[in-house]
Amino acid sequence: MSGSVFGNIFKISTWGESHGKALGVVIDGCPAGVNIDEEIIQKDMDRRRPGASKYGTKRSEGDKVQILSGVFEGKTTGTPISLIVFNEDQRSRDYGNIMNLYRPGHADFGFDSKYGFRDYRGGGRSSGRETSGRAAAGAVARACLKELGVEIFAYTKSVGKISCRDFDKAEISNNPLCMPDREAYEAAAELMDSALKQGDSVGGVIEGRISGLPAGIGETVFDKLDAVLAKAVVSIGAVKGIEFGSGFSASLLKGSENNDPFVIREGRPKKLTNNSGGILGGMSDGSEVVFRAAFKPTPSISIPQRTINRSMEEEEIVIKGRHDPIIVPRAVVVVEAMAAVAVFDLMLMNMGSRMDNIKKFYGKGER
Amino acid sequence: MSGSVFGNIFKISTWGESHGKALGVVIDGCPAGVNIDEEIIQKDMDRRRPGASKYGTKRSEGDKVQILSGVFEGKTTGTPISLIVFNEDQRSRDYGNIMNLYRPGHADFGFDSKYGFRDYRGGGRSSGRETSGRAAAGAVARACLKELGVEIFAYTKSVGKISCRDFDKAEISNNPLCMPDREAYEAAAELMDSALKQGDSVGGVIEGRISGLPAGIGETVFDKLDAVLAKAVVSIGAVKGIEFGSGFSASLLKGSENNDPFVIREGRPKKLTNNSGGILGGMSDGSEVVFRAAFKPTPSISIPQRTINRSMEEEEIVIKGRHDPIIVPRAVVVVEAMAAVAVFDLMLMNMGSRMDNIKKFYGKGER
Amino acid sequence: MSGSVFGNIFKISTWGESHGKALGVVIDGCPAGVNIDEEIIQKDMDRRRPGASKYGTKRSEGDKVQILSGVFEGKTTGTPISLIVFNEDQRSRDYGNIMNLYRPGHADFGFDSKYGFRDYRGGGRSSGRETSGRAAAGAVARACLKELGVEIFAYTKSVGKISCRDFDKAEISNNPLCMPDREAYEAAAELMDSALKQGDSVGGVIEGRISGLPAGIGETVFDKLDAVLAKAVVSIGAVKGIEFGSGFSASLLKGSENNDPFVIREGRPKKLTNNSGGILGGMSDGSEVVFRAAFKPTPSISIPQRTINRSMEEEEIVIKGRHDPIIVPRAVVVVEAMAAVAVFDLMLMNMGSRMDNIKKFYGKGER
Amino acid sequence: MSGSVFGNIFKISTWGESHGKALGVVIDGCPAGVNIDEEIIQKDMDRRRPGASKYGTKRSEGDKVQILSGVFEGKTTGTPISLIVFNEDQRSRDYGNIMNLYRPGHADFGFDSKYGFRDYRGGGRSSGRETSGRAAAGAVARACLKELGVEIFAYTKSVGKISCRDFDKAEISNNPLCMPDREAYEAAAELMDSALKQGDSVGGVIEGRISGLPAGIGETVFDKLDAVLAKAVVSIGAVKGIEFGSGFSASLLKGSENNDPFVIREGRPKKLTNNSGGILGGMSDGSEVVFRAAFKPTPSISIPQRTINRSMEEEEIVIKGRHDPIIVPRAVVVVEAMAAVAVFDLMLMNMGSRMDNIKKFYGKGER
Repeated sequence: MSGSVFGNIFKISTWGESHGKALGVVIDGCPAGVNIDEEIIQKDMDRRRPGASKYGTKRSEGDKVQILSGVFEGKTTGTPISLIVFNEDQRSRDYGNIMNLYRPGHADFGFDSKYGFRDYRGGGRSSGRETSGRAAAGAVARACLKELGVEIFAYTKSVGKISCRDFDKAEISNNPLCMPDREAYEAAAELMDSALKQGDSVGGVIEGRISGLPAGIGETVFDKLDAVLAKAVVSIGAVKGIEFGSGFSASLLKGSENNDPFVIREGRPKKLTNNSGGILGGMSDGSEVVFRAAFKPTPSISIPQRTINRSMEEEEIVIKGRHDPIIVPRAVVVVEAMAAVAVFDLMLMNMGSRMDNIKKFYGKGER
Repeated sequence: MSGSVFGNIFKISTWGESHGKALGVVIDGCPAGVNIDEEIIQKDMDRRRPGASKYGTKRSEGDKVQILSGVFEGKTTGTPISLIVFNEDQRSRDYGNIMNLYRPGHADFGFDSKYGFRDYRGGGRSSGRETSGRAAAGAVARACLKELGVEIFAYTKSVGKISCRDFDKAEISNNPLCMPDREAYEAAAELMDSALKQGDSVGGVIEGRISGLPAGIGETVFDKLDAVLAKAVVSIGAVKGIEFGSGFSASLLKGSENNDPFVIREGRPKKLTNNSGGILGGMSDGSEVVFRAAFKPTPSISIPQRTINRSMEEEEIVIKGRHDPIIVPRAVVVVEAMAAVAVFDLMLMNMGSRMDNIKKFYGKGER
Repeated sequence: MSGSVFGNIFKISTWGESHGKALGVVIDGCPAGVNIDEEIIQKDMDRRRPGASKYGTKRSEGDKVQILSGVFEGKTTGTPISLIVFNEDQRSRDYGNIMNLYRPGHADFGFDSKYGFRDYRGGGRSSGRETSGRAAAGAVARACLKELGVEIFAYTKSVGKISCRDFDKAEISNNPLCMPDREAYEAAAELMDSALKQGDSVGGVIEGRISGLPAGIGETVFDKLDAVLAKAVVSIGAVKGIEFGSGFSASLLKGSENNDPFVIREGRPKKLTNNSGGILGGMSDGSEVVFRAAFKPTPSISIPQRTINRSMEEEEIVIKGRHDPIIVPRAVVVVEAMAAVAVFDLMLMNMGSRMDNIKKFYGKGER
Repeated sequence: MSGSVFGNIFKISTWGESHGKALGVVIDGCPAGVNIDEEIIQKDMDRRRPGASKYGTKRSEGDKVQILSGVFEGKTTGTPISLIVFNEDQRSRDYGNIMNLYRPGHADFGFDSKYGFRDYRGGGRSSGRETSGRAAAGAVARACLKELGVEIFAYTKSVGKISCRDFDKAEISNNPLCMPDREAYEAAAELMDSALKQGDSVGGVIEGRISGLPAGIGETVFDKLDAVLAKAVVSIGAVKGIEFGSGFSASLLKGSENNDPFVIREGRPKKLTNNSGGILGGMSDGSEVVFRAAFKPTPSISIPQRTINRSMEEEEIVIKGRHDPIIVPRAVVVVEAMAAVAVFDLMLMNMGSRMDNIKKFYGKGER
């Protein structure tokens, strides 16, 4: 499992480098009979595409996704779904200033340490473009989840020190920073402009929410719902932390403050609060699942930095070209994608948890 | 992979319920030739044992670990290592007040939702006792890592709102809360006493550190070092979040502040700062790996709480008996254990990353 | 996956050496609500126990299985089931004549090549006793399959050159060689007596049959039903081959002879013949699954043999003590066990194959 | 693991349908630094291509493989290698006579049973074209093995009842049936001609051989070298059985006949015979690994056959078009490919088996 396969039943294998011929993903284990077409997937691909606003890189990526297998007459067939995006913009470039330098905050040094050399063109496998396969697979997982009444969305909770105070869901798709609070967006936009001017970058926090998940999803020891989500989301480049429900602030609370009382509402079990973030003992508890991921500021900045080269000499590096001054808004759909893949896989896994349900599935009476 | 197996090559399977006959772990894929005996493992088991201080439950667990297989004449043989701890204290008890109630903050409701019923005795599989198998496996992983010059330790960074300001490593094992700062410990002890008196509980944060790790450990997409550590640590009951290096505060920084400049010191690559927490692009970068995990306050408190029963009626619950007013200090060794298992597995995985090294391994010339 | 874990959802981890303290298996992923007790498992354990007849080794193994976890009030809970058998007969022995020699036909040489040393006591991990964990796990898988109407049995098809011509199912448990043909058994018994007298051993073939399996079980490329069964069964020590349906003789046939015509009988699809052995394209086809496994003669014989020692010198070896002159009858239950584990795991995996069924499972209407 | 992913470290995911846009494979876990180009892979692709002789289907497949990722400046980079073959011949066809019928000996019935419907065009995922991804991945695995001195080749051992008696390695690539015996080839060619005339098909046996494998490869319980090879090879469509070394005939022998004596030759351990087929206790024993796979006759024949349709009515089916009258010669390279993938993965897995070697790998002294 050398790093590029995720999932147990719904299993995705992503591949591709920033400046190679193409990037893509193979999804093994998608159930048959799901309505999928390129348009549904493209919609999510477009959300991670830059260029719509001044806060994304100017590179024109195109990112037209094609379905190469696993779909027949508009429906998944149960066989692997191969999705591909060709790199249109492959003209040769001058990498002279980075091919021998280790960019601070980047994977360059690790790649050389691990593999002895690297595809230095545009970050190679560690480019943000790697996430296009994730977004594509996520669109498929999301289509599956939708049929089960499960919805996932994410949004920018904060940009640098500017946090949303208001929550207007409709506003999220209304501004290029994906913030549900117009006022916060405007302050953040100012911050971005100033960072852009300085050739600097800023970080932020994305919050993800999953609703409609039945209770009991997640396995009870290592494959806990939160543990699997943690791996899924932390595996996105630039993520430096994740928390669930009350998260780090739970460490400041008393048990009597942090425990969520159970009550009955309209004949059904509810929790009065949701400090658990919808997860207890590693299983969904029927409330909305809530998590937050911290993103570091884009490491590519145009301010001169100290670094070293492959010959182990110190040098100054100035990273040329336009880079995203913030990763967060483009990562929103990637967070959703990874959450969708993780949760749908656990829902499939969960189907084997009770013999009475397995018997019903195979038509073997009540017992 | 229904939740109780972890790892790819060094693979652990834990098992056992709080009040069953025994608990244990089977380790598959441990290399041959490692010096292991019951004493080495017992040392770690004892660190998670309660009772040493007033901040642990009074239950006498014994926790005498036995090696049942995989070790011959003091050395691992390469075959599975089965480790077992018998439950000494198995007398039948009155579970009348919890067998039909869902304890707030506990897995009870999830278990019933998922499986239709549960072993309600002492939390069953979701008891803190489940971690004894983790600690035992961790001791073996740690022994392996030690031979490779890799060391892992963890400590209590904060208890409730009281954070360590000082760092005196020797102090960690000197106080029952595993804090490296005597003054902070004393304030925390006061906080604990007051929580105990109120029948309440408190949370906290554990910091883990891994030193001696060569650069390049971790796989570059889904099995990133931080992603795998995140899953490993978040899978510990009561963990609500994890962060690496500058973590959540990275989201507040500029790129120019968060990037760690590379320099050469004594002919070797170093970073001037360690905001990365020793991980770049999912691979170790040669610096110390640093992460922090947030633990919620123990959900078992003796203060009356609102809840519901299996018949979907509201009830008040009062949890009897003595419970840990804080999980954190006993979890320190468990955090170390999970980190050790995760890191050693990735080091084994990494051995296949370069053909020139594989050739050398199999005696096939320099190339 | 260093060799001792099998399965994807119903996942077994076996452990233990022939002369260690104990042997056992941990089953992760067994559904909740299956009636299991030690008696059910013991029944299968007893079938692989020697000593009932003169064709088994005289060693008294006891093999009393204990359930240590995962079962509560007579039902599986969904958590890992730990099964253990303590080795009663552990007195120290004189291994002088084998600890430095490589027994022909045994794993000794491979162990030393791989691990640098080995637990030489009674074959260590490669002893036939290793199969006790398989038999125990198989009993649990079989109990699950029974609830789904799937039955598995195996029997001795041939001993040396003596093949069964008749098939009387009741006779199988009537003779110590598990043959369904009394006459063949009597001829085989004579062969065994003569082999015993010469200090030699004989091989044989076991046939396995699986009935009640719905069509469509097995995944279509690498995890084909036959491929997974092949791995499961060939992983049993001493198996040198496996075939399905018409098997090797299919290679001698024309397509028009080997294809099984489909017909309708009582309104349901049937095949007029079963050359496919119940498997087409890697999926069950609704007919009985039929396979045969070839077992080599027991390698431990008392006739002097040429071999080498750890110092790379030639030596003669005479293996002392009584050994099974044939492995086959004791392996019958092990073949059943591995088939049961493989098939039940594939049935669980199959539950995620169609979205309409997943929707029904999660109560999401017909569509 | 729904069927289309194979391997633990060197992990392949194949995808694609016979008449979809393309087919391919993603290889995750290939080490960095292996010299690979499209030509090397194309060579193996061409060997499974039909059309060279009258014994292959006339369909022009093209099968020009492209490397889309994971290779940079002629060397693997350690990141996933995506290989693709576009289907050139995609014009729409009349599938009227098979879209509603279940072809005897084919996967059609299973597909409909499992998934509710199927891509009926040319067999969809269960077409022989599915093996193009296997052949491509095999070429990469073979290139890796070559650097380690391991070579794999396979050949047609028998066609129907005609077996090779002679073994002239050079002859294998000299005739379209890949037989190492000219005389046998000529007899087989006659048999093929007669089958062709009758619209019938024949089966056969392929033998595979692996040389240069160090002793100790393979894990000792479930991931035995023979068990993993069995899964790998039986997963190829049309394989009905596999045997190792003396195989099924071992069941007819005495222990004294089947055991291979160890001797010393030129200071190194050898076996006087190779009934073990190079595998003892699931590990390579230093001798050549030898196995045979039985292939059934091609199920597609033009002779009218009885079958049923999707409405559960009986019908006669006549399969039109030209089909391979024998699968065997085109499967030779696929057998080699699956063996290469299986063996290389086990060699990577084996690197973690001894702590002294791991220490050396990580530069931690001799001990």
